[in-house]
Amino acid sequence: MAPRITALHAHDLRFPTSDGRHGSDAMNPDPDYSAAVAILETDDGDLAGHGMTFTIGRGNEICVAAIRAFERHLVGRDLDDLEADMGAFWRSLAGDSQLRWLGPEKGVIHLAMAAVANAAWDLLARRTDQPLWKYLSDLEPKAIVRAVDFRHISDVLPPEAALDLLEARRDGRAAREAQLLRDGYPAYVTSAGWLGYDDDAIRRLCRAAIADGWMHFKIKVGADLRDDVRRCRIVREEIGPDRKLMVDANQVWDVDEAIRHIEALSEFDLWWVEEPTSPDDVLGHARIASAVRPIRIATGEHCHNRIMVKQLLQANATAVLQIDGCRLGGVNEVIAAILLAAKFDVPVCPHAGGVGLCQHVQHFSVFDYIAVSGSLENRITEYAEHLHEHFVASIEMKAGRYVLPTAPGIGVEFKAASLAEFAYPDGPVWRNR
Amino acid sequence: MAPRITALHAHDLRFPTSDGRHGSDAMNPDPDYSAAVAILETDDGDLAGHGMTFTIGRGNEICVAAIRAFERHLVGRDLDDLEADMGAFWRSLAGDSQLRWLGPEKGVIHLAMAAVANAAWDLLARRTDQPLWKYLSDLEPKAIVRAVDFRHISDVLPPEAALDLLEARRDGRAAREAQLLRDGYPAYVTSAGWLGYDDDAIRRLCRAAIADGWMHFKIKVGADLRDDVRRCRIVREEIGPDRKLMVDANQVWDVDEAIRHIEALSEFDLWWVEEPTSPDDVLGHARIASAVRPIRIATGEHCHNRIMVKQLLQANATAVLQIDGCRLGGVNEVIAAILLAAKFDVPVCPHAGGVGLCQHVQHFSVFDYIAVSGSLENRITEYAEHLHEHFVASIEMKAGRYVLPTAPGIGVEFKAASLAEFAYPDGPVWRNR
Repeated sequence: MAPRITALHAHDLRFPTSDGRHGSDAMNPDPDYSAAVAILETDDGDLAGHGMTFTIGRGNEICVAAIRAFERHLVGRDLDDLEADMGAFWRSLAGDSQLRWLGPEKGVIHLAMAAVANAAWDLLARRTDQPLWKYLSDLEPKAIVRAVDFRHISDVLPPEAALDLLEARRDGRAAREAQLLRDGYPAYVTSAGWLGYDDDAIRRLCRAAIADGWMHFKIKVGADLRDDVRRCRIVREEIGPDRKLMVDANQVWDVDEAIRHIEALSEFDLWWVEEPTSPDDVLGHARIASAVRPIRIATGEHCHNRIMVKQLLQANATAVLQIDGCRLGGVNEVIAAILLAAKFDVPVCPHAGGVGLCQHVQHFSVFDYIAVSGSLENRITEYAEHLHEHFVASIEMKAGRYVLPTAPGIGVEFKAASLAEFAYPDGPVWRNR
Repeated sequence: MAPRITALHAHDLRFPTSDGRHGSDAMNPDPDYSAAVAILETDDGDLAGHGMTFTIGRGNEICVAAIRAFERHLVGRDLDDLEADMGAFWRSLAGDSQLRWLGPEKGVIHLAMAAVANAAWDLLARRTDQPLWKYLSDLEPKAIVRAVDFRHISDVLPPEAALDLLEARRDGRAAREAQLLRDGYPAYVTSAGWLGYDDDAIRRLCRAAIADGWMHFKIKVGADLRDDVRRCRIVREEIGPDRKLMVDANQVWDVDEAIRHIEALSEFDLWWVEEPTSPDDVLGHARIASAVRPIRIATGEHCHNRIMVKQLLQANATAVLQIDGCRLGGVNEVIAAILLAAKFDVPVCPHAGGVGLCQHVQHFSVFDYIAVSGSLENRITEYAEHLHEHFVASIEMKAGRYVLPTAPGIGVEFKAASLAEFAYPDGPVWRNR
């Protein structure tokens, strides 16, 4: 008998990161990094699945309520049945005949679905004692295709084309895995450049990051052009001409404004400009990308589903696809995004500034390299330093690279002490504020 | 002293409409029409503002939680201050530095914001004893522009262009108002064509609607092509060649499939085809629209914000813009959509299949005609018959037209008895199921 899911538990966990202006940017001045947590219990005593979605504070309780709304689709499910058709499972969540209205496939209901779907993937990987990247990379191409919902993307990527793409990469999977196990997966650091940090802090953090072997640096821009110029100059001075500098505007510009501001920053040899305008504006991104070429536009952290991914790629709106493991509806849709990007030969460089996001994206980037793109060219995954200590499994970095995780599952199980201490609103950290 | 908002109350109200398959379509087989209700109390005893968002059952509690999350932006506000800058008020909701992450500007948080923002507009209109359409139509063009958030749409419609557009329509407002007061605003009926109805029911409902003076009929398609052909034939037989027939696929087709199916239905002289594919797929809609011309594509009921409206219009993706008064973030964003449509000379034909949606859109269409487009050509507003009896203000139709409402405000105040009886999960209707 396969284990069966017996309960879904949801938790509201918040960290008071706004105290130190960690994570501050032009659109999000005071985030309290938070997680709406989904835990799937099974009738196999030791086995539980852990998923989460990331928010920045207020409203995390809304995602918790949305996680609970999926309970009927989880409890009673048998893991063999789940594993036999993860695509059907995903469609049962995304296609719930009443919940679907709340998106469809976007916003709170989709964020919550990511937590729930990923908790199920966590269960499947844990059951085999493998980290998610290994579980996914070892799947047969047919099983990978079966996990994806091709609805509304089949005009650009029919299932047969996805299968061909995966079959073409079948050779070399073992060699690429061995390479990553030896070298790690390349990363970049955002920790130096949050908008709330003063100039001295930026210099100090740049030097520390260089000492740690980082080669790519990203800073936040968009609040004030003169500040942006000054901060870019500081970082470029510190990192020298050979290391890469990226900037992130976090959606604050309108289309024409974005073009003007990017031109004003072009002297700093930007490797990419991230989220120049509304994440929904495919046509706006396309216009900006065309106007500022050869500077590359990057977006995707707020890209809410595979249909938007499809259009960003169709329209040449982004040169870098920055998927988010909680904004998309979980592993199934992340795979869809990675396949779409491969089809258009656009590098996937996942977003990870938040709590628990590094944990997710390390698996996705490794899977992308081993099983889908087979390339590391222009690929680099975000890394942010905060709050890793609250997870049971650790994250290890070496010389600016993710060391491949070995713990079974996705690795977003919170320590029991953290779940208690940072519980909102009744945990000690919040009760006493 | 102006009245001040003293409390925000939220209610979860659900009607068991799935019992009769009212509202059933290819994507939504079993909707329980529901409302997440926001009521703003003031310190002026009699004055309260009523807003709501529409859902189809499960998950309505998530919208209720999201309405509550906006409390801090409402309670304590003074109505004179609100009225002096409704744009700033709207931006304080849409731009909440932590809640914004949950959208941005889409899904649950945006649905809830519509309820809250509209409750505030309801207060302002009630205070002047005017129905919303009259309150809006009498605003100075400058005040209308001030209520709109032009962020991320200024590349296509800067505020100055919106002001020019409104100023150009200033003459003739009184004449257009008099005309609508005399004739009503043209409507069409969806009640005959829900997918769950059998052929006899469709014939019977068509005949009844013809007897009531209706000239435009819409039916649901998309579950099975042979059924669609049969049902279109029945309706066309019943309504004759001169009355208009529209079909609504509720997003079920992929892009190429949509083109094939629409071609197969072209013999029935379709006035428009609604929601052929994913509401997020601007480029897909554009491809379908171009392939099936002269049949017109209509979409917008799930278009989640002004940035998507902008792109649908930029891409020639829709010939008819079907705004939803609860999906967009309230009156402010509805005005943005109406202005954008006017700029592209695309008719606005609002969506109203649900509970409380007719109540909203009658105001928007009337405002559109009097103050923005000045045209009735190809304009027609949806009407659905269900559940009007639960509202304090009645809706009056005459010969297929909305009679202009006279009750102050938006008219979505539920009767106290309905609020009690259909409260979920503790009202008598649900407790006993």
